[in-house]
Amino acid sequence: MTLAGNALVAQSGGPTAVINNSICGVIQEWQKNGNGYKIYGGISGIKGILAGDMIDLGLQDPSIINGLRYTPGAGLWSCRYKVSENDQEKLLDICKKLNIRYFFYNGGNDSMDTAHKTWLAASYAGYEMQVIGIPKTVDNDLPFTDHCPGYGSAAKYIATTVLETGYDLQSVSTKNKVTILEAMGRNAGWLTAAGALAKRTAEEAPHLIYLPEVAFDIDAFLQDVQKVYDCLGYVYVVASEGLVDKNGEYIAAGSSKDAFGHAQLSGVGEKLKQIIEEKLQIKARCNILGTAQRSAMHFASLRDAQEAYTSGMQAVKYALEGKSGIMVSLERAEGKIYSCQTGEVPLEKVANVEKKIPLSWINEEHNYVTDEFIQYAQPLIEGEVAIPMKNGLPNYITIDRDLGKVTLNPVE
Amino acid sequence: MTLAGNALVAQSGGPTAVINNSICGVIQEWQKNGNGYKIYGGISGIKGILAGDMIDLGLQDPSIINGLRYTPGAGLWSCRYKVSENDQEKLLDICKKLNIRYFFYNGGNDSMDTAHKTWLAASYAGYEMQVIGIPKTVDNDLPFTDHCPGYGSAAKYIATTVLETGYDLQSVSTKNKVTILEAMGRNAGWLTAAGALAKRTAEEAPHLIYLPEVAFDIDAFLQDVQKVYDCLGYVYVVASEGLVDKNGEYIAAGSSKDAFGHAQLSGVGEKLKQIIEEKLQIKARCNILGTAQRSAMHFASLRDAQEAYTSGMQAVKYALEGKSGIMVSLERAEGKIYSCQTGEVPLEKVANVEKKIPLSWINEEHNYVTDEFIQYAQPLIEGEVAIPMKNGLPNYITIDRDLGKVTLNPVE
Repeated sequence: MTLAGNALVAQSGGPTAVINNSICGVIQEWQKNGNGYKIYGGISGIKGILAGDMIDLGLQDPSIINGLRYTPGAGLWSCRYKVSENDQEKLLDICKKLNIRYFFYNGGNDSMDTAHKTWLAASYAGYEMQVIGIPKTVDNDLPFTDHCPGYGSAAKYIATTVLETGYDLQSVSTKNKVTILEAMGRNAGWLTAAGALAKRTAEEAPHLIYLPEVAFDIDAFLQDVQKVYDCLGYVYVVASEGLVDKNGEYIAAGSSKDAFGHAQLSGVGEKLKQIIEEKLQIKARCNILGTAQRSAMHFASLRDAQEAYTSGMQAVKYALEGKSGIMVSLERAEGKIYSCQTGEVPLEKVANVEKKIPLSWINEEHNYVTDEFIQYAQPLIEGEVAIPMKNGLPNYITIDRDLGKVTLNPVE
Repeated sequence: MTLAGNALVAQSGGPTAVINNSICGVIQEWQKNGNGYKIYGGISGIKGILAGDMIDLGLQDPSIINGLRYTPGAGLWSCRYKVSENDQEKLLDICKKLNIRYFFYNGGNDSMDTAHKTWLAASYAGYEMQVIGIPKTVDNDLPFTDHCPGYGSAAKYIATTVLETGYDLQSVSTKNKVTILEAMGRNAGWLTAAGALAKRTAEEAPHLIYLPEVAFDIDAFLQDVQKVYDCLGYVYVVASEGLVDKNGEYIAAGSSKDAFGHAQLSGVGEKLKQIIEEKLQIKARCNILGTAQRSAMHFASLRDAQEAYTSGMQAVKYALEGKSGIMVSLERAEGKIYSCQTGEVPLEKVANVEKKIPLSWINEEHNYVTDEFIQYAQPLIEGEVAIPMKNGLPNYITIDRDLGKVTLNPVE
C-alpha cells in the first residue's frame, strides 16, 4: 500500500443493469485490503461530492453491500455533470479534508474525462491521490477495452426481446406486419447490433438492422423492407436511435441537448413506422424499450455481472499497487474459447473517445451485421444472475443514503 | 366419452407469454384420454382452418409439444378474423370431412364470439360437436372469470419493468425527470394498473397511474405531475394506450381500425411527454414496451403458466364429459390465501363482453389504484418459469407446420 488514506467511490452517467457490481467489487476489495481505512461513497457522482454529499460505506449492512450485485440503477446515484476548473480545486479541497487518497470513478466516456481531469488536477497540485476509472456503459463505446461492463446484459435483454417479439410477429396473421425495435446508442450501434444474436434461421427476427456507423438511406430502407415483406410476409427491423443521413443529420433529431452538448434523441422508430405505412402501405408497430435496456437486471448476463464486479475489485488492486491515471480494461484472449482478463489503459487515451462498430462488421448493403459481430458479442450474454424474489418481483436493495453522512465543516 | 371423433384446437388474437401452455394442456390431455382419436391443430386460427390449413399434432415430437410450456407467441399461429355466415357453413363442412367432434378455441373476447358462433352453427345444423373456449388475453378483460391466463405474466413483466426503470429514474440526477410507461389495454386498464405492483415505498415508482376506465383530464394530469415533481424531484407515470377524455375521444387516436372495428392506438406516451415538456418545462422520457408485454416468457409468472396449462387440460375434460358451448373460467376462492379452480361459463355470456377495472378500485383523484387491486393482482405474478437456455438466450421451440398436413380433397 503506497498511500495512507481513505477511498472514495462514485458513479456517473446512465446506469446499467450491472453497474452496482463494480461498486460492490470496489467496496468489498477495499474492506478486505484497505488497511482499515474508510471507503466513502459519493452520492450522485461528482456533482454530489462537490456538494459534500458523501457517506461512510462502512456503516451499511454487509447484506446491503452484497445486494448491489443484483440491483440495477446507480446504487450511489449518478449524475451528468461537466466539471469546471473551479470545481477541480474544490474537489481537491474536499479530498484533502477527508484524507481521500484513492478515487474510483465508475462511468462511460464523459466520466472517464472527469476522472482524467481529476487525476491531472491532483498531479498539478502535488496532492498524492490514485485515480482509477472503472468502465461502465450499455453503449459499449469505450476504446482500448474489448468491451464494457453493462453491455452484455443490455445485449442479452435486447436479443431476448427481439426473439420474443419476433415470435409474436411471426405468429399472428394480422395487418401489423412490420415490427420496429428502437435501440439505444447515440453514435455507436453496439446495442442495435445485439438484436442479431436472436436470429437462428432466415425466417426469424431480426431481418434488417440499421446502425449509426453508416449513412441511413430512406429509399434503400424502403426497398429492404419491401423485399423481406414480399419474401416472408413480415419484417422485423432493429434501428438505432442515432441513425444519420449521408449529411450526418439525425433522422430523428430532438430539440434538446444534454450537459455535454449531445443531442437527446427520440423518435427514430416512430418515424420509420410512419414512412413504411405511408410509402409501402404496410402496417407497422414500434417498440421502444427506452431505459428498460439499461436496467433489466432480471435477465442480466451472469458473465457481464461477474466482469463488472471483477473490474471494480481490480481497480482497488491497481490503486493499492500504486497505479493511477488509468482505467481498468477488459482484455479478451485470442481463440475460439472465450477468456477475458482485466488490464489497464491510461485515462487520457480513453477520455471522450468513442469506439464504434468496425465497418468490416457491417454488411455491404448496410442493413445487417456480419458473423464477426456475432462471434464477438455472443460470449458476452452467457449465463443468468440469481435474483432474490419477493412477492413475485425482484427484491432489489437500496443503500441508506442518510447513514454515515460526511461532515466537511465540523463545529470548531 | 360421448362422441366418437377427432379434436381440433386453434389459437386466435394477440398472443400471450403463456398462450401455448393452454394448447399444450389440450394436446397432452387429449393424447392421454382421447381414446386414440386424432387431434388436429388449426394453423392461424379460424382463418387457416377455413383455408384447410391444419396439421395432425400427433406427428410432432413429444419434446416439441412439451416445449410449448415455455415458448411465447402463438405456437399454432393466430389470426384476427371475423367469421361470416358463409364461413360457418364452410367450417362445419370441414369439420364433417375430418370427423371433428371436439373444437377447442383459445383466445380473447373476439375469439369467444367466434367459438360461440361455431357452437350455434353446429347446433342449428344438427352436427354434434363439443365447442369449448379457453380464455387467453394479457388484457384480462374477459368477464365471468376471476382473471385470464396471460395476464399474470404480462403484469409481472410490466411491474418488473416499472421497478427497474424506476430505480434508473430515481438514481440519475439529470434533467430527464419524468418517465412515462405506455401500457397495452384498449378499453380496460388491467395491464396499466399492474405497474402499481412495483411500488414498495412512497418514493418508489410508479407515482401516477392513468386508466381508460375514467376520463382523462389534461389539466388535472399536469397538476398531478407537478405536485409529485415538487415533492420528489422525479415522477414515474404509467398510462394506458387507451386513455379517453370526458367525451370518450381517445387521447391518442390512430387513424386505422382492426378487423373487428377497434381503433388501433399508439402515441399516448409520446403525447403526454410532449405536454409535460411544453407546459411544465420538465424533460420527460417515454418507454413503450409494445408487443414485449405479451411475449416476455423469459420472466413469465409460473402461476399464470400453470393456470394456462390447467385451463387447456380442463377444456378437454369438460368436452369429454359432454359439455359444450362453454368457456373454461378461473374461480378464485374467498379469503386471504390464494386458491383458484377452473369453472365454466356459457360462451354466449362471454362473447364480446369486456370486463373493466371496478371504479371502486380506482382512487378518488383518478390517478392511482386502491389496495383492492393490489390484493387482486399480486398473487397472479408469483413464481418463475424455468426456461431451457442456449447460447445465452431462451431456447424456444417451433412447431413444424408442414408435418402431417391435412388433405381435405384427396384424389378420388
